[in-house]
Amino acid sequence: MGYRFTDLTDACHDDWRAYLEHDFVRQLGAGTLDEGAFRHYLQQDYLFLIHFARAYALAAYKSRTLTDLRQAHEGLKAILDVELDLHVGYCREWGISEEMLAELPEARATMAYTRYVLDTGNRGDLLDLHVALAPCLVGYGEIANWLNAQAFTVRGETNPFEAWIAMYESEEFQSAMLAELEWLDARLAGIAPARFAELARVFRDATRLETDFWQMGLDRAI
Amino acid sequence: MGYRFTDLTDACHDDWRAYLEHDFVRQLGAGTLDEGAFRHYLQQDYLFLIHFARAYALAAYKSRTLTDLRQAHEGLKAILDVELDLHVGYCREWGISEEMLAELPEARATMAYTRYVLDTGNRGDLLDLHVALAPCLVGYGEIANWLNAQAFTVRGETNPFEAWIAMYESEEFQSAMLAELEWLDARLAGIAPARFAELARVFRDATRLETDFWQMGLDRAI
Amino acid sequence: MGYRFTDLTDACHDDWRAYLEHDFVRQLGAGTLDEGAFRHYLQQDYLFLIHFARAYALAAYKSRTLTDLRQAHEGLKAILDVELDLHVGYCREWGISEEMLAELPEARATMAYTRYVLDTGNRGDLLDLHVALAPCLVGYGEIANWLNAQAFTVRGETNPFEAWIAMYESEEFQSAMLAELEWLDARLAGIAPARFAELARVFRDATRLETDFWQMGLDRAI
Amino acid sequence: MGYRFTDLTDACHDDWRAYLEHDFVRQLGAGTLDEGAFRHYLQQDYLFLIHFARAYALAAYKSRTLTDLRQAHEGLKAILDVELDLHVGYCREWGISEEMLAELPEARATMAYTRYVLDTGNRGDLLDLHVALAPCLVGYGEIANWLNAQAFTVRGETNPFEAWIAMYESEEFQSAMLAELEWLDARLAGIAPARFAELARVFRDATRLETDFWQMGLDRAI
Repeated sequence: MGYRFTDLTDACHDDWRAYLEHDFVRQLGAGTLDEGAFRHYLQQDYLFLIHFARAYALAAYKSRTLTDLRQAHEGLKAILDVELDLHVGYCREWGISEEMLAELPEARATMAYTRYVLDTGNRGDLLDLHVALAPCLVGYGEIANWLNAQAFTVRGETNPFEAWIAMYESEEFQSAMLAELEWLDARLAGIAPARFAELARVFRDATRLETDFWQMGLDRAI
Repeated sequence: MGYRFTDLTDACHDDWRAYLEHDFVRQLGAGTLDEGAFRHYLQQDYLFLIHFARAYALAAYKSRTLTDLRQAHEGLKAILDVELDLHVGYCREWGISEEMLAELPEARATMAYTRYVLDTGNRGDLLDLHVALAPCLVGYGEIANWLNAQAFTVRGETNPFEAWIAMYESEEFQSAMLAELEWLDARLAGIAPARFAELARVFRDATRLETDFWQMGLDRAI
Repeated sequence: MGYRFTDLTDACHDDWRAYLEHDFVRQLGAGTLDEGAFRHYLQQDYLFLIHFARAYALAAYKSRTLTDLRQAHEGLKAILDVELDLHVGYCREWGISEEMLAELPEARATMAYTRYVLDTGNRGDLLDLHVALAPCLVGYGEIANWLNAQAFTVRGETNPFEAWIAMYESEEFQSAMLAELEWLDARLAGIAPARFAELARVFRDATRLETDFWQMGLDRAI
Repeated sequence: MGYRFTDLTDACHDDWRAYLEHDFVRQLGAGTLDEGAFRHYLQQDYLFLIHFARAYALAAYKSRTLTDLRQAHEGLKAILDVELDLHVGYCREWGISEEMLAELPEARATMAYTRYVLDTGNRGDLLDLHVALAPCLVGYGEIANWLNAQAFTVRGETNPFEAWIAMYESEEFQSAMLAELEWLDARLAGIAPARFAELARVFRDATRLETDFWQMGLDRAI
């Protein structure tokens, strides 16, 4: 009893670090990432966001309290009313038109992670779904913080990926991350070891699938 | 081929009229409805709304296009950001505090209709879900219009239920109803008779369960 | 921590006793139940069984282990390969043909309980689903045992409902009930109070909806 | 109107042929496939089967008729009562113990296809689910038939993979495939072009993900 989110990352420490410190991330921090790789990642991230909206909608459906329902709705609203537009605008700056986004084939890595999250949510309960989403929501915030602590990271206009880092270190994103950690810690505090083992498995699988998403970017894989 | 929403109401004509023209509705129009019955209805309608929010969330999860996803989200947002607050305020005017709402036991009729809608959505596709929701969204708009056409209907301050009628005849609600009818007609145009028979069954069952909701109000049943 | 199934029945003691000791049950035990009421119950129980098969299928879908998957499958197989046929045969003895069963309108009480179970399963996890099913699987076994302990109960050919009691006191049904209790106790042992409160709510609602099913029989209600 | 299963394969002709005639398949037919690659495929196919059992369970849950419910159950029963045991036995012959199977990490390609199928089933209706399963059920039967028509295929004891080919050309598997084709053709006959476009997308994605499963075998990828 008395588990916390850090017990999930401890339980798959190597997988978690491999995800946070992936070459894609390092090169993005150093400003040396191939622009085609970044562009490929950006496009798939657009499709990813749409399925993440579906995941928040599923969280709303699965909620037992008005508080959880409203929280899931805030996640959905943030994607549909803000993030998708930001993403479309950001893509435009990288030469990707909205028409191109609408025609994109979905990469295997995109399908693998998003459908894993959605099936995990349908199979289990709201906590399973949050744990499957955590490598994304918590991970991106941790990545921004980790990059800021690395000597190789270049900030400012000389790094073509400055806007990406700035978004995930922003107070808005960081406070969403902290709210999620608080929600997770509150639930993890009350579970038994057998339940923790199930969730640790979900978290590890989701982390591995997020790692594949970086690799897909580097490989420009479909 | 070439079905429309009116084919659904025609297929269960008597059930549909029994719902629209229920004694609860007539007494509400005439201003003669027992206030305790109305208060009971209002309270259960609050719980109903929460499950309707879950139904719109399920519709968002089930969407295949960004257009459908956004449309489902608008329904969810309308409930969570506007209607629930309006409802809480309206309940307050009728002497029902927010604390009372939070403690309410859920009536059988509330459980029956809402869970039928949600299981229909999970069992079938997005169209099944919309058809199960239609007696509510389309029905309430039609009821306001029907009441306005009846000689017995009393409008204005002398009718204690004036605000209820006014809400559902409002341009905002009526245009939401018309948008839903348009969505339904576009999908119904492309289905085969066997599929129509499935949907007609869903629509009839949902209509009967909505009728029970009126009766629950009259009976003050839990 | 350390909850058991009996904590669920204790948490809604009056509702649970009202279900087990309902007039429908008493009259069935005494052999005085109106035969039309029993016939109505039998017909709706046929529709009920079909949705229970869907509930076991949902349990199979939601399983995380091969053991849980096989257990859910045994429940589904028992309904589809044995119980439905027994039910059809039993209905025939009561003058209800298979054609009549296929044409039956589904009663409100049937829809309310079955859809509540199915939505509870989709909203929560495998344990929620089992708890929602428990008033049926565990309750019917307890009812047979309770009837056997009552002075008013008539056994043997003079009771037209002898076969019903015999089925639920049979070693086969009783051992299925005990297996379910064991499964539930194993999971309930590891949950925190907040989780128990959620499950107690599900169990109470499901028990009330099962009680309505008896009442529907007495009232011959559709 | 009047679509058939072959319209789905025609709509993604190149993807479908790439799946049926994949190098893994060719080498298996010729008896030249690396045994380690086959062993890797066999192990992942065991995990695959478990999720396929979940997919048939989902099909049972989503069924609207007793006929569809029984058909889905036959699929589930075949996997749990027959195929898994056969698979365990077959694995044993290839030096893979049941303990090894229980400990297996799930490969990305296994997660990607299985979760895509399950989410497609939850998002859409029973037909979406069947279409997502078709590359497996129909595809394996077609592959056996295609191999038998190729000059390079070696049959009999000299081909270490003889038992694999024999299983999928068996009358039992072929008649299951024909029954599925009949079921699909009956439903596809009644759909409109917009619905066909949705299903063609599902079929193409599922086919691509099945192709990845062969490639995973060749690459011995996790």
